[in-house]
Amino acid sequence: MNTFNKYKIPVQGLPSGDDLYIRVIDVEGPEKGPKCYIQASMHGAEHQGNAVLYQLLNYLESNDIKGSIRIIPTANPLAINTKMGPYTFGRFNAGTGDNWNRSYYNFTENNEKVHLFAKQHLNSSESIINVEYKKLMEDLLVDQITESKYGSSQNGHLHLILQQLAINADYVLDLHTAGVATRYLYAPEYLAERSSALPFPFHLIIGDKFGGSMDEAAFITWVNLRNIFSDLGRVFNIDFESYTLELGGEERISIEEASKDLEYILKYLSHKGLTRNSETKSEYKIIKCNKKDYKSYFAKQAGLYDFIAKPGQLIKKGDLLAIGINFENYFLEESIKYEVLANEDCIVLTHYPSSSVMQGTEIYQVMEQFY
Amino acid sequence: MNTFNKYKIPVQGLPSGDDLYIRVIDVEGPEKGPKCYIQASMHGAEHQGNAVLYQLLNYLESNDIKGSIRIIPTANPLAINTKMGPYTFGRFNAGTGDNWNRSYYNFTENNEKVHLFAKQHLNSSESIINVEYKKLMEDLLVDQITESKYGSSQNGHLHLILQQLAINADYVLDLHTAGVATRYLYAPEYLAERSSALPFPFHLIIGDKFGGSMDEAAFITWVNLRNIFSDLGRVFNIDFESYTLELGGEERISIEEASKDLEYILKYLSHKGLTRNSETKSEYKIIKCNKKDYKSYFAKQAGLYDFIAKPGQLIKKGDLLAIGINFENYFLEESIKYEVLANEDCIVLTHYPSSSVMQGTEIYQVMEQFY
Amino acid sequence: MNTFNKYKIPVQGLPSGDDLYIRVIDVEGPEKGPKCYIQASMHGAEHQGNAVLYQLLNYLESNDIKGSIRIIPTANPLAINTKMGPYTFGRFNAGTGDNWNRSYYNFTENNEKVHLFAKQHLNSSESIINVEYKKLMEDLLVDQITESKYGSSQNGHLHLILQQLAINADYVLDLHTAGVATRYLYAPEYLAERSSALPFPFHLIIGDKFGGSMDEAAFITWVNLRNIFSDLGRVFNIDFESYTLELGGEERISIEEASKDLEYILKYLSHKGLTRNSETKSEYKIIKCNKKDYKSYFAKQAGLYDFIAKPGQLIKKGDLLAIGINFENYFLEESIKYEVLANEDCIVLTHYPSSSVMQGTEIYQVMEQFY
Amino acid sequence: MNTFNKYKIPVQGLPSGDDLYIRVIDVEGPEKGPKCYIQASMHGAEHQGNAVLYQLLNYLESNDIKGSIRIIPTANPLAINTKMGPYTFGRFNAGTGDNWNRSYYNFTENNEKVHLFAKQHLNSSESIINVEYKKLMEDLLVDQITESKYGSSQNGHLHLILQQLAINADYVLDLHTAGVATRYLYAPEYLAERSSALPFPFHLIIGDKFGGSMDEAAFITWVNLRNIFSDLGRVFNIDFESYTLELGGEERISIEEASKDLEYILKYLSHKGLTRNSETKSEYKIIKCNKKDYKSYFAKQAGLYDFIAKPGQLIKKGDLLAIGINFENYFLEESIKYEVLANEDCIVLTHYPSSSVMQGTEIYQVMEQFY
Repeated sequence: MNTFNKYKIPVQGLPSGDDLYIRVIDVEGPEKGPKCYIQASMHGAEHQGNAVLYQLLNYLESNDIKGSIRIIPTANPLAINTKMGPYTFGRFNAGTGDNWNRSYYNFTENNEKVHLFAKQHLNSSESIINVEYKKLMEDLLVDQITESKYGSSQNGHLHLILQQLAINADYVLDLHTAGVATRYLYAPEYLAERSSALPFPFHLIIGDKFGGSMDEAAFITWVNLRNIFSDLGRVFNIDFESYTLELGGEERISIEEASKDLEYILKYLSHKGLTRNSETKSEYKIIKCNKKDYKSYFAKQAGLYDFIAKPGQLIKKGDLLAIGINFENYFLEESIKYEVLANEDCIVLTHYPSSSVMQGTEIYQVMEQFY
Repeated sequence: MNTFNKYKIPVQGLPSGDDLYIRVIDVEGPEKGPKCYIQASMHGAEHQGNAVLYQLLNYLESNDIKGSIRIIPTANPLAINTKMGPYTFGRFNAGTGDNWNRSYYNFTENNEKVHLFAKQHLNSSESIINVEYKKLMEDLLVDQITESKYGSSQNGHLHLILQQLAINADYVLDLHTAGVATRYLYAPEYLAERSSALPFPFHLIIGDKFGGSMDEAAFITWVNLRNIFSDLGRVFNIDFESYTLELGGEERISIEEASKDLEYILKYLSHKGLTRNSETKSEYKIIKCNKKDYKSYFAKQAGLYDFIAKPGQLIKKGDLLAIGINFENYFLEESIKYEVLANEDCIVLTHYPSSSVMQGTEIYQVMEQFY
Repeated sequence: MNTFNKYKIPVQGLPSGDDLYIRVIDVEGPEKGPKCYIQASMHGAEHQGNAVLYQLLNYLESNDIKGSIRIIPTANPLAINTKMGPYTFGRFNAGTGDNWNRSYYNFTENNEKVHLFAKQHLNSSESIINVEYKKLMEDLLVDQITESKYGSSQNGHLHLILQQLAINADYVLDLHTAGVATRYLYAPEYLAERSSALPFPFHLIIGDKFGGSMDEAAFITWVNLRNIFSDLGRVFNIDFESYTLELGGEERISIEEASKDLEYILKYLSHKGLTRNSETKSEYKIIKCNKKDYKSYFAKQAGLYDFIAKPGQLIKKGDLLAIGINFENYFLEESIKYEVLANEDCIVLTHYPSSSVMQGTEIYQVMEQFY
Repeated sequence: MNTFNKYKIPVQGLPSGDDLYIRVIDVEGPEKGPKCYIQASMHGAEHQGNAVLYQLLNYLESNDIKGSIRIIPTANPLAINTKMGPYTFGRFNAGTGDNWNRSYYNFTENNEKVHLFAKQHLNSSESIINVEYKKLMEDLLVDQITESKYGSSQNGHLHLILQQLAINADYVLDLHTAGVATRYLYAPEYLAERSSALPFPFHLIIGDKFGGSMDEAAFITWVNLRNIFSDLGRVFNIDFESYTLELGGEERISIEEASKDLEYILKYLSHKGLTRNSETKSEYKIIKCNKKDYKSYFAKQAGLYDFIAKPGQLIKKGDLLAIGINFENYFLEESIKYEVLANEDCIVLTHYPSSSVMQGTEIYQVMEQFY
């Protein structure tokens, strides 16, 4: 039988005197095994991950695991609760504009202690390194957390708490969604092949670099170590994995679709030995694409858009993505209606969730040169 | 051939020095006939009406009418342009909270000149009254518009301009949408039967009263006159009609669906003699319901909601409307999941457009006791 | 020695699973006496009342009272916590636009039980009526509170809780602020003279009518009863008093100024026998004005405003209130600068708190015909 | 006599069909001389620069200059017009969170053509380089501007237009304000001494680096060139200067204070030969500080803050900066009131403009180790 442990951590004091909390649920299997960390809703409008975690909890109540899973639903309560009109103003801090998934810490970069560690462990086995490096990281984070006498910023405070909760994990999954979207994931280059164990239909392969997001913050510590080892002449294979999973559109949950989302995740966890092999014999088709071929379309004209091309669709070069209408055109003796066509063959990953579009708005995100 | 006349009116000065405009398109048929006024997007996030007006313009370019149609797309540019995150903060004035469709003027109520008019025209024919009363209303509105030395409020200023543009119409259609919604309309009691000429599937019959909205502001002037005539012992039948049409969900347009929406409207206009009879032989089923049986469900629990019952569906008493999940329940040793059940048999008109729900949020609007 | 009793009431469930609370502090003196209810921050950006309540608590820790005072700081936590940029979006519900001080309940109007009560107590003494009517009101509110099977709205839910907490009070003080403002208060007509016991420098005398605010919700129950008694031929003098106090500008607190604000309030409480006579021998000058002479200036031109006339100042007819600048004027070959002049002699109560002004914005609130 | 040339450029298409414009005023003196570029209100709530530009225009109407001044008031109309409640949501793009002063282009970094240019002009005179490099920059920007077939983002589009307007200037002044603030400026290291010609009381010396702001975007092109020359063995002295000027608090203008602000700027322009020497014999005291000693205090506790230390004040280590109150403390049996003390001697530059403070909010910005 799995054991369940739960606790709450205050993360955000509010002017009214109330506090907002994150909720941590630690599930430990009867047998030892790897550690997985899963969080949802770092961006406040991205809810579907919570439905998946609800389904995961149900699964874990009747299915034993080897190892442990740490579950953090609604990981960013301030962003989740920030509603303007019926919608959630949750992508960035409403006070500062800081994107909630762009200011995690890269605390191992240019860090003297990491260099020292690499030298000391130049000949250690990978399993020893995995254990000892986690200890080092934990210490480095504690240094970082020790609150400065000047205080710490809202985003930074939350990020450190979450990074600390994830620091011992072998696998980190950060559950997101996009505006109106299909299912896809982000994987670093060193996982370009291994990502297939997580059979989401579309995979974006990003650089082994740090841009401030949770998945990057999690793997960059290992990439930093690998790079130092490399400078020292040792080839170090990173065992650790982290992914950002995109679970469709924002501002909605579907408990039914969450079962399918969970199936992908359980496939991955069973591949890692945490769960039993699921019986589904599904064949998964995975399409991948490199970051440089991940393109955004920005609106050249403002207006009201009918998004014709839907997430998951293959659109051929020159075919219709969207139709816009703008009545000012009528007063300029031009056609009210205009068309946005595909510059290249592409697969649509996301489109903007409102038909009301300013000039310069990112309206489509697509994969080109996919394989 | 219809003639097309277009002009822009500045309605909102902005701090940057720029102005926002409304765009008026007057279409006049080769033969005389009734006057129809149609506006869209008084609430800033409600875009579909503009797609319908686009289709209507296309129609009018090749189909002659009898009479005239005044078309005002994007009638509230300030609200349309107020975007927070990807969504439109357009239901109420972001500065004052005033609902953009609740502060039109009821300038004929308790108005000495209207009483005088009724006495003078106690024995006039209805057609003379229709002509002369419009002249009086125009004068009364001009009085109202003459800008006070203290200035006028944002909402009031826009409303007066729109009311003036509509003052001569025989039929007023105000195009709206709701959160996530089916097609339905609002009609006053005195049009409870005549509304069937506008074959939207669901009709809400509201009182012959003024609550501040455009449709009410348009018909209340006639209701006020009728009531005075009634006090004076004359039965006066109101020829004038106005409706609020709800064209599905907000933050989206569908040019394809707009063709169907236009079909309803053309059906109405042909019934009024403005357009030729459309050839569609569609049978329309219309369900009506009185205001008192139009019910809202408010969330008793905050959380993330999966809206199971869809707009247009008939839900039986005790059946599932929505499922909510709230992980705090897990920490209170309760079920994460809870259910919202229907109190009575009902037809769903709308649900809230975000799965993220505060306690006290209006999550469903339904018709009970429909007929 | 006063006794202090404190408790928290959850008032708002949030999507994250957290709850927001109101905090109630009941202070009871060693001797019996009247009951006073004071709340602050119903509008989320109006903070100074909390500084006053902090000073009041300090006072009560070393000064015995006769009777009791119920203190509710930060009475509207959701509104207080709603921050957009550095400022508080707290005047109206960010989801619905409903002004947080306009939807309290008028539950005694047209209420059969109140009519019955008046008939039964037509000859009762005023002191008996005061006691028995409070019991009736409590019952009526409980009826109202019993949650409907359709749930209750956000604003309504909070308002009922606060009205229930205030129902037994003899005096109700609702602490507000305005944009940039002087100190002033609102008093109903029946307190037009008695309001002088609360020596704020400016008093606005409003009708004995219900417009949805807390002070009105509190006194309207007594006005309703008085009116019924009047219809039955009895003159009933209302003992109960309620006021809205305006404590300067929003988005700021000054603990020092709060001492002065508290002095006014203690003056009032001592007049009512709750506190000892303060030793200050201050002479207070009070200027009053009727609602109809309370005027708002709306911006006729958008632009950037320098508010020359300051709150509390007397401005003569034709003198300068504000200067605006708008560079678009320069492109129209007009003067960049324009002036807003006073239409009549007036005392400035408030001005808009931002220099960036849309056309139609309420920029000044003034008293004319003051006495 | 100076000549005045004015034109408008559309910069932002809106969903309603309207456009927002920037307004350019080019003032050319009767004699040749340097070129100065001044813009205001890149952050939408920062208005005082416009009052200064209004005063500058007045000055230029009666005072001849040598050279030219390009004036761009209200440089970011979208941000200026974004109002939530009475305040301006103008620091970052309300749709994307991108800070409006952090995404200008650094188009000369790692640019092959700049390297080539440096090699070609290794022995050219500085005056020739100044002329020729501006031509190169203009070409490079045009390359950048040629709209990509995928469109360009809102911030990027505006930034390129402004950078192009500034590309020929010898001096660039970007007029800002902070929350509640004193007057101060930002200068790059290479202008650490020369900045004294602009006698604002406080100067922050930042690195010769690019962080995305207008002043940095303007000087980095010259720093990039200088660095390449340095690699090639030539010492190149940068003639070009750019500064960000902070003109007090946001959401306000004072036409009177603008005269004083203008005095500083005219002092600078006369020093550069653009204007005649002003007759003021004012002695200016300037205090400078390096970026590393520019410190922010973040709120460790949420609550309502009384900001005791005022902008421009010297606060000694251990002295009081602010007092917070939080009634939840009372329920935790702690003191409602808490104090924020200075960690080191410092001069206050800014504080947060609202008393309502979340945990983690940046409440004070100060200079330490000033000189």
